[in-house]
Amino acid sequence: MENFTLVRPEHLNHHGYLFGGNMLKWVDENAWMAATRDFPGCTMVTVGMDDIRFSHRVDNGAILRFHVEQQEKGRSSATYSVNVLADEPGATTEIEVFKTRVTFVRVDEEGKPCSLPR
Amino acid sequence: MENFTLVRPEHLNHHGYLFGGNMLKWVDENAWMAATRDFPGCTMVTVGMDDIRFSHRVDNGAILRFHVEQQEKGRSSATYSVNVLADEPGATTEIEVFKTRVTFVRVDEEGKPCSLPR
Amino acid sequence: MENFTLVRPEHLNHHGYLFGGNMLKWVDENAWMAATRDFPGCTMVTVGMDDIRFSHRVDNGAILRFHVEQQEKGRSSATYSVNVLADEPGATTEIEVFKTRVTFVRVDEEGKPCSLPR
Amino acid sequence: MENFTLVRPEHLNHHGYLFGGNMLKWVDENAWMAATRDFPGCTMVTVGMDDIRFSHRVDNGAILRFHVEQQEKGRSSATYSVNVLADEPGATTEIEVFKTRVTFVRVDEEGKPCSLPR
Amino acid sequence: MENFTLVRPEHLNHHGYLFGGNMLKWVDENAWMAATRDFPGCTMVTVGMDDIRFSHRVDNGAILRFHVEQQEKGRSSATYSVNVLADEPGATTEIEVFKTRVTFVRVDEEGKPCSLPR
Amino acid sequence: MENFTLVRPEHLNHHGYLFGGNMLKWVDENAWMAATRDFPGCTMVTVGMDDIRFSHRVDNGAILRFHVEQQEKGRSSATYSVNVLADEPGATTEIEVFKTRVTFVRVDEEGKPCSLPR
Repeated sequence: MENFTLVRPEHLNHHGYLFGGNMLKWVDENAWMAATRDFPGCTMVTVGMDDIRFSHRVDNGAILRFHVEQQEKGRSSATYSVNVLADEPGATTEIEVFKTRVTFVRVDEEGKPCSLPR
Repeated sequence: MENFTLVRPEHLNHHGYLFGGNMLKWVDENAWMAATRDFPGCTMVTVGMDDIRFSHRVDNGAILRFHVEQQEKGRSSATYSVNVLADEPGATTEIEVFKTRVTFVRVDEEGKPCSLPR
Repeated sequence: MENFTLVRPEHLNHHGYLFGGNMLKWVDENAWMAATRDFPGCTMVTVGMDDIRFSHRVDNGAILRFHVEQQEKGRSSATYSVNVLADEPGATTEIEVFKTRVTFVRVDEEGKPCSLPR
Repeated sequence: MENFTLVRPEHLNHHGYLFGGNMLKWVDENAWMAATRDFPGCTMVTVGMDDIRFSHRVDNGAILRFHVEQQEKGRSSATYSVNVLADEPGATTEIEVFKTRVTFVRVDEEGKPCSLPR
Repeated sequence: MENFTLVRPEHLNHHGYLFGGNMLKWVDENAWMAATRDFPGCTMVTVGMDDIRFSHRVDNGAILRFHVEQQEKGRSSATYSVNVLADEPGATTEIEVFKTRVTFVRVDEEGKPCSLPR
Repeated sequence: MENFTLVRPEHLNHHGYLFGGNMLKWVDENAWMAATRDFPGCTMVTVGMDDIRFSHRVDNGAILRFHVEQQEKGRSSATYSVNVLADEPGATTEIEVFKTRVTFVRVDEEGKPCSLPR
């Protein structure tokens, strides 16, 4: 899945760059939507994130592109890579600003892990 | 451009459905990102929206898909159609919930209209 | 109905002016309150907006005045004009920055249109 | 000044009523707009609130009416009463839910108190 | 209780300092958490605030420290002092920026006052 | 550092539990405040998070306690453990709901890593 978000003043830290907490919130949301679309009808919950790396600060006005891809699929869990690229005002090329891997587990109505469809 | 957003409790009206004002905010943001990616380096401003139609109420937990397409291109303006489809929890097909057409104008540093690149 | 809102940094785009999406959100909210006060006890839903025009960018710190007036009343629908005027820091007169017409329909408990009281 | 605000799920506490902190935020904003409109061109800052009383909890979907009136005017300060009335879904009359008095001081560019215009 | 909050651009007024309404919202939230932790299992509601004083404007990037202390305990109510100190970027000492006293009442399921545990 | 946050409806996902993205945002904010207080006058930026584990879903109305502790200190970086405990309405004991380790680097005015004070 490819998804886009616009960075505005409400998302900044006091240095004038994207507040890291907002990046993490968006990553969780985007990865969750990708997983839910891959497994329709399943309730997916975030159980972990690994290898989080903030590699570049992000300017006000940047258009962020979240590239989410399924990496692994287990019995009840699935892992997605998330790469975030920033297209900043006045720039001619995107730069990678963040990456991580997010793992989701399918849960049943009591919140217990259950098998993903084949 | 295709773009996705998740409807959560913070986006609802007191009847428990998506508050229409949030839909309009997201439409403006998504159309603006599409226009800015089509015309890199240009400052685009929203000048109008036409034919706004809310055709179906939207549930909590729906994944919204914004389908944005360029319809017309003038000397300094460009018009985009925006169709929004909702994938609701437990549903098997998406339904169309909203549509409109948004027009942007390119402006220079004084805020005056100027020509778009060919 | 006359209603006022204050523009703060959380409402701006990255150019430092009011983000258009927030204007649309506020317009929907203000028109809805006017319609609900005109038809107490009725559930009103936004079905359309026409002739949206952003005529002037809005500064940080502006006090916006939303002037909402009923224009037409049908069997189950009512249409309101919304004019937004901005009183900007240091200015001596208000300027018109936005206008539109919003149409609401009264719905019953199943979400179907029903007659407005006379 | 009379001003209206709509209570939505994003404004509630976990009991399902308006979170008191949001009421206080709105009161400050509304009183500040009234004071700024009374003294155009002056920078007004909140210096105090007295006699804050939450007299009734507020339901989801209520339309709040903020009634703000100038009570006293000193050399560099002005005091406003704020009464908040709630029109709740299904109700036939408004009820008073909150009141307070807010005092503002005019400050110059260094942030020091200075005289209000006559 | 001691509690910390970070001031970011989304919290500012158009002069670039903390918007007073946000301070009031945070004070209510922090005092409520202190009261709820002191009286576990009790539903506490804010009934009043006294002696609110904003004594210093607060910069973007400040770390605010909310110092909340129980001052009085009645049959069904308890009063807390709240002092807020700001640690601003580049500063070497904290300064006091705000203080007030907040009173809570314990209510039962019908919303009526009831006795606090000894 | 110990810090507290209240979970309200605006923070929930559509299942009625805390939206994971908000937890991540708060963790980043709390760890950053701890690091900034340990190294006054230094600009600290988040460079990574490891071993993120969501171990329990969080109810509406929970008071979250963020326990942040410095674990390692290198030449230009410092690593903090963050444990989050939830005190839910009606519960008699806190439960651990989340943990991670966050690493910060001190940067100079050009955004390049530089030595932390001893």
